[in-house]
Amino acid sequence: MNSQSPIQESVPARLARVREVMAREGVDALLVPSADPHLSEYLPGHWQGRQWLSGFHGSVGTLVVMARFAGLWVDSRYWEQAQKELEGSGIELMKLLPGQPGALEWLGEHVERHGVVAVDGAAMALASARQLRERLEARQVRLLTHLDLLGQVWDERPALPGNPVYQHLPPHATVNRAQKLAGLRQALQAQGADWHFIATLDDIAWLFNLRGSDVSYNPVFVSFALVGQTQATLFVGLDKIDDHLRQVLQVDGIEVRDYAEAGPALAALTPGSRLLVDPARVTCGLLDNLDEQVQLLEGLNPTTLSKSRKGEEELVHVRQVMEQDGAALCEFFAWFEANLGKEVITELTVDERLSAARARRPGFVSLSFSTIAAFNANGAMPHYRATEQSHAVIEGDGLLLIDSGGQYLGGTTDITRMVPIGNPSREQREDCTRVLKGMIALSRATFPRGIASPLLDAIARAPIWADQVDYGHGTGHGVGYFMNVHEGPQVIAYQAATLPQTAMQPGMISSIEPGTYRPGAWGVRIENLVVNREAGKSAFGDFLAFETLTLCPIDTRCLLPELLGAQDIQWLNGYHAMVRERLAPLLKGEALAWLETRTAPV
Amino acid sequence: MNSQSPIQESVPARLARVREVMAREGVDALLVPSADPHLSEYLPGHWQGRQWLSGFHGSVGTLVVMARFAGLWVDSRYWEQAQKELEGSGIELMKLLPGQPGALEWLGEHVERHGVVAVDGAAMALASARQLRERLEARQVRLLTHLDLLGQVWDERPALPGNPVYQHLPPHATVNRAQKLAGLRQALQAQGADWHFIATLDDIAWLFNLRGSDVSYNPVFVSFALVGQTQATLFVGLDKIDDHLRQVLQVDGIEVRDYAEAGPALAALTPGSRLLVDPARVTCGLLDNLDEQVQLLEGLNPTTLSKSRKGEEELVHVRQVMEQDGAALCEFFAWFEANLGKEVITELTVDERLSAARARRPGFVSLSFSTIAAFNANGAMPHYRATEQSHAVIEGDGLLLIDSGGQYLGGTTDITRMVPIGNPSREQREDCTRVLKGMIALSRATFPRGIASPLLDAIARAPIWADQVDYGHGTGHGVGYFMNVHEGPQVIAYQAATLPQTAMQPGMISSIEPGTYRPGAWGVRIENLVVNREAGKSAFGDFLAFETLTLCPIDTRCLLPELLGAQDIQWLNGYHAMVRERLAPLLKGEALAWLETRTAPV
Repeated sequence: MNSQSPIQESVPARLARVREVMAREGVDALLVPSADPHLSEYLPGHWQGRQWLSGFHGSVGTLVVMARFAGLWVDSRYWEQAQKELEGSGIELMKLLPGQPGALEWLGEHVERHGVVAVDGAAMALASARQLRERLEARQVRLLTHLDLLGQVWDERPALPGNPVYQHLPPHATVNRAQKLAGLRQALQAQGADWHFIATLDDIAWLFNLRGSDVSYNPVFVSFALVGQTQATLFVGLDKIDDHLRQVLQVDGIEVRDYAEAGPALAALTPGSRLLVDPARVTCGLLDNLDEQVQLLEGLNPTTLSKSRKGEEELVHVRQVMEQDGAALCEFFAWFEANLGKEVITELTVDERLSAARARRPGFVSLSFSTIAAFNANGAMPHYRATEQSHAVIEGDGLLLIDSGGQYLGGTTDITRMVPIGNPSREQREDCTRVLKGMIALSRATFPRGIASPLLDAIARAPIWADQVDYGHGTGHGVGYFMNVHEGPQVIAYQAATLPQTAMQPGMISSIEPGTYRPGAWGVRIENLVVNREAGKSAFGDFLAFETLTLCPIDTRCLLPELLGAQDIQWLNGYHAMVRERLAPLLKGEALAWLETRTAPV
Repeated sequence: MNSQSPIQESVPARLARVREVMAREGVDALLVPSADPHLSEYLPGHWQGRQWLSGFHGSVGTLVVMARFAGLWVDSRYWEQAQKELEGSGIELMKLLPGQPGALEWLGEHVERHGVVAVDGAAMALASARQLRERLEARQVRLLTHLDLLGQVWDERPALPGNPVYQHLPPHATVNRAQKLAGLRQALQAQGADWHFIATLDDIAWLFNLRGSDVSYNPVFVSFALVGQTQATLFVGLDKIDDHLRQVLQVDGIEVRDYAEAGPALAALTPGSRLLVDPARVTCGLLDNLDEQVQLLEGLNPTTLSKSRKGEEELVHVRQVMEQDGAALCEFFAWFEANLGKEVITELTVDERLSAARARRPGFVSLSFSTIAAFNANGAMPHYRATEQSHAVIEGDGLLLIDSGGQYLGGTTDITRMVPIGNPSREQREDCTRVLKGMIALSRATFPRGIASPLLDAIARAPIWADQVDYGHGTGHGVGYFMNVHEGPQVIAYQAATLPQTAMQPGMISSIEPGTYRPGAWGVRIENLVVNREAGKSAFGDFLAFETLTLCPIDTRCLLPELLGAQDIQWLNGYHAMVRERLAPLLKGEALAWLETRTAPV
C-alpha cells in the first residue's frame, strides 16, 4: 500500500532547481504557504506550488526551503500522511501543535541576521506578511514579496481555470443580488468606507448569486470584486461570462472586467479614499498596487457574516437537501451491507457507489469535498484519501469511517458515519460511544446568543476528556449554502482565537464532529450539521440552540449502549425517530428496510 | 432598609469642587478608576478616591467626570447596589456588559476633538494608559497622567497604612525566600532581563515570605520590589520593618529602602539595562521615572505563575485548613438551625457568629473577604454586604446565601452555601439544583493540561444555559495560599480573554461558583475550592482533574433531587461521605449531629 508516486521521485530535483534560483537572487529562505490570491482553502492547480515542490498532497502545509534545510509544517491531521509522502524527499516533517510556534516563528529564529526571506506576495495575506515582517525584524532579516521564485522553475505549471460562470437562481437563491449589494453598501456606509475590495471567492459568489467550478468541490470561480456606493466591478476571465450573463449583471449595475485588471483598478483608486479590506483575506501583493494616500479600513468582509446567517427560506431548501442526501446515504448503506463479503469492496468502491447514489438525487451538483472512506488504520488520518495506488479492501473486523458530502442547488452537506465491519473490538466501540456522547452533548446545548463559538467546544469534549482522550482538529466549522463546505466566521474549536466575529448568531450552519484517532490502528469521527435557532428570550438574555439538519442513522452496532447516559439514549432514539419519519417517504425496498432496521430504538 | 449615608449626601458638593479644579487645569474629562499604585483588588483608604467622589462602595467601578456629565461604569454584579447608592448623586449608572465598550471607549467617543482627559498616572496601569491613549488618538484628545486632581480637593484623605510586616514561617512557608529569589532570577535570566520591578503586593509578599495587614482581608503590605541578579530591594515604610526582620532579610541579600524611594531607584537604572515589567501590573506613573534608554521587556511577573502553583507540602496544609474551616462552618450551622425562630437572627448576626466560629480555629488570621450573608432579595446582589443601616432579619420562607472565607497560616478559604429558611419555593429549589448541577459538572471534569482556563467555563454553564439561565460573573477565580482570595493567572470565565498565561497547570487552586440572580427576589450561588491535580498521561497528552478541597455539607433541602442526574447524585453522595469522614473527628455534640444529618445520602 506504500508506493512512490512519480511526483515524489522528482522532489529532490525540483528543490535543487529552486535552490539555484534562490542563490542567484540572494535569498536565504523561501517560504511557500498553501495559498493563492484568494486565500482559498482548495487551490486551483496553478497555485499548488507547495504540493508541486514538496510532494505533500494534503490541503494545508507550509514549506520552507533554505540552502541546507527544507521543512514542511503540517498540523496533526496530516502527520501520518506527510510522513509517508515526504519519505526520501529530503524535506523534514515539522509537526505543528496548537499554540506552538510554526513556520513564521521558526524563520524568525533560524534565518541569519541581515538575511533575506522571500515569499510570493501574490499568495500571502496582508496579515500574514505583517506578522512575518514583525518576526524577522528582531534579527533585521528582510522580507521580499515581489519575487515569484517558484514560478521561475515550475515548468508545466497548470493554467488558471477557465470554466464558465453561471447564475444561482430562484427558488434556491432566495435574496436577489440587488438586495445583497444594497446590504453591503449599507455596511460600507456605516463603516465610513468608500470602497470595498473582495478577494475571497465564496464572498463574491454569494454577493452576486453566481457560481462556478474553478476549484474542486467549491462552486466558486476565480475572480475579484470592487464595490463602491454607485459602482460594482467583477474581475473575472472574460470568456467565462457569456453575453446573456453580462447583460444580466449590467442590469444590476455590475461591470465585468478582466481578472488581470483588479490590480490596475486598485492602483486607480483616488488618493484619500477609504478602502475596506479584510487583512486576512486579501494579499499584500495586490494591495501593493494602492496609492499611498488611500486609507485602509480593516475589518471582516461584511459579506462573510451575511453569508453565514442563512435565512428561513434557505433553511427550507437545506432541510429538503438533507432529506435527499440522507436518502442517498441509506441507498448506499443498504447496498453496502447486502454486498459486503459477496464481492470485493474497497475504500474506492465506497466512494464510487456513494457518489453515484448522491448523483441520482435531484438538485445534486457535485461532491462538497473528496470522500474520505477509511478502513481501520487509514481512519486514523483525519484527512485520508484512498488512491488507486494506495487503498484498503474492506474485510475482516474493524471500523470503516466515511466522511462525505454533496453540493446541491439548495444547500451543502457534510456527514461522517462509522460502519462496523465484522466484529469491532470493545475498544473500538468504546471510542465510538465516547465520540457520540460528545456529539450529543453539544447537539443538545443551549447557549447565549453572541457567545464566541470556540467557547462551546468544551461541551463536546468534556465526555471525551473524561477518559483522557482528545483530538487535534476543531469540533465544528461553518458550512455554506450551495457554497464552500468550510466557511467562517464561526468555528467551534478551542484551539481558535475567541475573536468577536466568531460570535454565534441565528441561522449559522456548523458541523459537530468530534473524533478519536489511534495512529496505525483506527479512527473514529461522527458528524452532523446543525443550525443555530433562536431558543427564546429569558430574563438572562437571548439564547440559541441547535437544530440538527443531517438525516442518517448512526449505526448502534458500533456502540456500547451501557456507556450511554439516559439523556444520550433519549437524544439518540429521538434522532432516529426523526430520521425514519423524514427519510422513509423517499425510500423503498432494501433501502427502506435498512432505514427501519438501523433506526430501531436502543 | 434604604437610608442615605452621610457620604452620599456630600457627593454633589465633591463633584462641584472637582469640576472647579478641572476647569482651572483645562481638563475636559477626569477618569477615576478603582486602582492604586499596586493595581490591587482591595484598596487602602488612601486610594479609595473613586468611592469618596462617587459614593459607590462596590470594589470595582470606573468614574468619569465631565463638566455636564458624570457616569460610573460597573459590571452586572454591582448594578443593583450602584443604582441604590448613586441615587441623588447626579452620577449616571453606566451598565458594563461583557464584550461591550466601557469607560475608555466611551471617552474616546465623547470627549471633543483636541480635548484633554486626565487620570492620575500613579494609579493607572501602563497597559490601560496605552489603551486609553490609542482610543483618544483618533480625535486628537490629549491624555494627562501627571495631575492628581482628586488629591487637590480630597481633604481628610486617609494616610497610607502603617501596619507592621511579619514573616510567613515554616512549617506553613514551605519554600524559603532564598530559593524563591533564585527561581525568580533564573526566570529573569531566561528572559534576558537585568532587572524586574514588582508593584503587586501579593507577588512581593509571596516572594519574600512576608505578610502584613495594610489591606482588608489580604495579608499583604504596601510595598514595591526591584530584583536583579545580585541585588534585591524591598521598598516599604521603614517603620513597618523591625530590626530583627531587617537583619533576617539582609542575610538573604534583601535590602530595605523607604517606600518613596521606588521611583528614584527606577530613575537610577543604568541606560541600556533591560527591565522586565508586567504592563498590566505596574503604573505608567512609576515607569515615567525610567531613563529613556532603559529597555522594557514586557511579560507576566514570573512570581505570578510560581505563586499560583501550590506545592505538595502547601496542599497538605491547605487540606488541614479546609478541615478546620469546615468544622467552623458546621458549628455555625448547628447553632443557626437550633436557634432560628427562637431569637432574632439577622444577616449581621450570621456574619458575627460565623466569624467567631472561624476565629476559634487554630491558625486563623482573619477573614479572607467581607462575609456575604444575604437573605432572599439581598442574595440577588452577588457582592451584597449587610450594614448596620441596611440589613435583613432572617425569617419567613426563602433562601439565605452565605459566601465567606478565612485566612489561615496554612491557606485561604472561600465557600458559598445556600441555607433553606422555612419552606423555599419550588422555583428557588429549581435554581439551587441547576446551579449545583453546574458546579458538579465542572468539579467532575478532566481536561488537557495547559488548556486556557476560560475555555472550561462552558462545562459549568451548560446545565444552567439549558434552562436559558446565565450569570454575569465568572465561574471561578484563582485562590492564594494564605494570600489574596482572588489571584491569577488562571480564571474560569468565558468573559475573560484566553491568554496564554491562563493555562491550567498542576497545583493551581480555583473556585467553582456558578450562580443565578433574580433581582428583587433571590440569588443562588454554590461554591467550592478545587485544586488542579495530574490525572494521568495518555496517548493524547497530559490531563488534569480537580480535587475538591472545600469541606462542608451542601444542604439538600434546597434541592429538587428528581432534577439531578445519576452522576450528579453519585458525586453529591460521594462528596458528603468525604465531608463526614474528614470533619467528624473535629466535631462533637450538636455540630457533629448536624454534620451527620446534613451529609445523609440522597
